[in-house]
Amino acid sequence: MAGRVAGPEIERLIQLLARLPGLGPRSARRATLHLIKKKEQLLAPLAEAMRAALDAVRVCTTCGNVDTTDPCAICADPGRDPSVIVVVEDVSDLWALERAHAISARYHVLGGTLSPLDGIGPGDLNIAALVERAADPAVREIVLAVNATVEGQTTAHYITDQLEGIEVRVSRLAHGVPVGGELDYLDDGTLAAAMRSRTPF
Amino acid sequence: MAGRVAGPEIERLIQLLARLPGLGPRSARRATLHLIKKKEQLLAPLAEAMRAALDAVRVCTTCGNVDTTDPCAICADPGRDPSVIVVVEDVSDLWALERAHAISARYHVLGGTLSPLDGIGPGDLNIAALVERAADPAVREIVLAVNATVEGQTTAHYITDQLEGIEVRVSRLAHGVPVGGELDYLDDGTLAAAMRSRTPF
Repeated sequence: MAGRVAGPEIERLIQLLARLPGLGPRSARRATLHLIKKKEQLLAPLAEAMRAALDAVRVCTTCGNVDTTDPCAICADPGRDPSVIVVVEDVSDLWALERAHAISARYHVLGGTLSPLDGIGPGDLNIAALVERAADPAVREIVLAVNATVEGQTTAHYITDQLEGIEVRVSRLAHGVPVGGELDYLDDGTLAAAMRSRTPF
Repeated sequence: MAGRVAGPEIERLIQLLARLPGLGPRSARRATLHLIKKKEQLLAPLAEAMRAALDAVRVCTTCGNVDTTDPCAICADPGRDPSVIVVVEDVSDLWALERAHAISARYHVLGGTLSPLDGIGPGDLNIAALVERAADPAVREIVLAVNATVEGQTTAHYITDQLEGIEVRVSRLAHGVPVGGELDYLDDGTLAAAMRSRTPF
């Protein structure tokens, strides 16, 4: 802010909040003012919650999920099907599948996709541990739930190659018309895939 | 999140972040994941900055601005014109005028607008203190920089009535075409006001 109208503690809060995804400088200022106005109801609890999260958050050494326990609640849950591992790029994808109640299985978080241009090779992703887990005879299926992007598909192909020789079924998410989607607004590739994979009505 | 996938400390952070203006449940989850991934670079400094702001923030007893000192840096600045008080609804408006370098004067933050429907009367706003400040002979002009909304204008009229009998000029912001604005997209009221207030070229 020009001319430093607010004190340094306020300016610093604005600067740090502006680094959150979805918040720019303008909305960071608005958020900061909101926090200042609700000091006791919001600023104090949020400061405390961040402190607590800082101490509690762990990365699951089995699957790469973030949680407050290691192994994470999903890996430790005996009610989940141990024969299926769903491979996702990021924890946000894991959360999305869980919100959708898509499957009651275990996950494996890659931590990104292969991207030679960005210098991200197989060694930078959580792939070796996946191959190790897949070798467990209890595991029967690996679902490659990566994004339908070039990088996601490249990564899926690489993983499939790595799983060669292991007795495990490899599957991927179906392509098709999104629920509620209008054909007129869909791209040609999705429409063609939905037609190829048409199912009995 | 359905089924509590993440630990309670993570869930709590999502819930609190979702209460910030501009962040919904979805973006609060994304922000939380971002914070967790950047624990040392962002989560820790942000927790610390919130703690510091919590201790440092004061409301200026003179003008109602928020800052880390009381009187605030603007009220304490000897370089500002002491004869002009700019009346704004909210601290965010004060910040906006300061960013624009609109004027080098002092401010008075009302803390809202008159709104009988919401039960907000003159006693709920910082108006009595404004009248007191206006009575200081050093003050020559009160600029009513309230929003051009019905509530803002009602509040401006009420304040003008209260200032009756005090030797002070009362002005308001000009209406007109926004800089860079296209006539075709402007409402009729703004266009008519801009025409009425046309200036020599």
